[in-house]
Amino acid sequence: MQTVSSRKKPSMRELNQLSTRRAIADAAIQLGMHNGGLESIRTTDIAEAAGVSPRTFNNYFANKYEAVTYRYVERMQFAADVLRDRPRDEPLWDAIRAAVREPWLRSAENADGPSPATMAELRLLFGHGAIQSQIMREALAENSEFARAVAERTGMEAGALYARSVAAAVAAVTETAIAIFLRSEAPGPFLPLITEALDLLASGFATPS
Amino acid sequence: MQTVSSRKKPSMRELNQLSTRRAIADAAIQLGMHNGGLESIRTTDIAEAAGVSPRTFNNYFANKYEAVTYRYVERMQFAADVLRDRPRDEPLWDAIRAAVREPWLRSAENADGPSPATMAELRLLFGHGAIQSQIMREALAENSEFARAVAERTGMEAGALYARSVAAAVAAVTETAIAIFLRSEAPGPFLPLITEALDLLASGFATPS
Repeated sequence: MQTVSSRKKPSMRELNQLSTRRAIADAAIQLGMHNGGLESIRTTDIAEAAGVSPRTFNNYFANKYEAVTYRYVERMQFAADVLRDRPRDEPLWDAIRAAVREPWLRSAENADGPSPATMAELRLLFGHGAIQSQIMREALAENSEFARAVAERTGMEAGALYARSVAAAVAAVTETAIAIFLRSEAPGPFLPLITEALDLLASGFATPS
Repeated sequence: MQTVSSRKKPSMRELNQLSTRRAIADAAIQLGMHNGGLESIRTTDIAEAAGVSPRTFNNYFANKYEAVTYRYVERMQFAADVLRDRPRDEPLWDAIRAAVREPWLRSAENADGPSPATMAELRLLFGHGAIQSQIMREALAENSEFARAVAERTGMEAGALYARSVAAAVAAVTETAIAIFLRSEAPGPFLPLITEALDLLASGFATPS
């Protein structure tokens, strides 16, 4: 799945493509939310809701799961860009913590949690195994943007065990924190839970005393 | 997906069920390996190859992806049992390292790598996004056996962020190590790579110097 990196200034053509991609993704999320999931939704429904042809849909996404996870993947992409832009002398895990938090800080209307719209989106994503798996697949992929950003910072190859393991583990504990947040009957604040999960990871899961 | 834990002595009925489950899982793997993947395989093909009715297949597995990943999930289940049986005073990460290695030590014919049959199985699992996602879904699940084993050892609730994050991160870095091993043109030894990934995790990914 292609995303537009904030690293270089995008052309007008790229901006138009991004706009179309987001419109399709948002239509997929809306349809999924209003129909209790994606099971009965066809890609032609999504295309129609987004005002594009089925062929255009297929130019942008391989299937409905890719479409509905795009906004989440975009957050991961954004986090990778933030990681690249953090000061070079900042300790790696401070930079990672800041990078993973940034997309949520921008989308949250308040410090306590995601906006109702983002909550509904997350419930759709994490209530559906096939969708959640699609997210994890991106994180584990050989060409994960986050792994590449970690590799650049640490001066190693993108495919190195270190960089890929960091990216996979960061995604795994972030997803775990989100899943716990969504399943909680009286969820506390959102970002502190993600931060706590990343702190555990950075500490080597220092055994609780 | 149910698995039989080694914790309590299984009944004859449970052993028969386990035998059927494994026969279906092995048939799914064989069919997938001989057809370049699972795309064109139907659950009725798998049932026929395993010598059971389609209805029996459905009693054991929700779909072909669950069937083909069962043996891998069984290894995770076995690792959780090993973790439970490690000495209580052993440091957590020593116990985890031993637990994750154990299923591979048992199945590998030599210290350098998995047997050709296991290699073929892993190539099938990790060459297929939908299958790999199914594995990760198990690891991230609220009722992950490995998370429960970690929780028991550390005296916390199974759903706690700590226990679930450990389980998710262990699965993520193990999968990353396996994926790197399978994609390598001249793969080195197998278990040391998994061990290295777990060591990185236990060290909080101490930044390479």
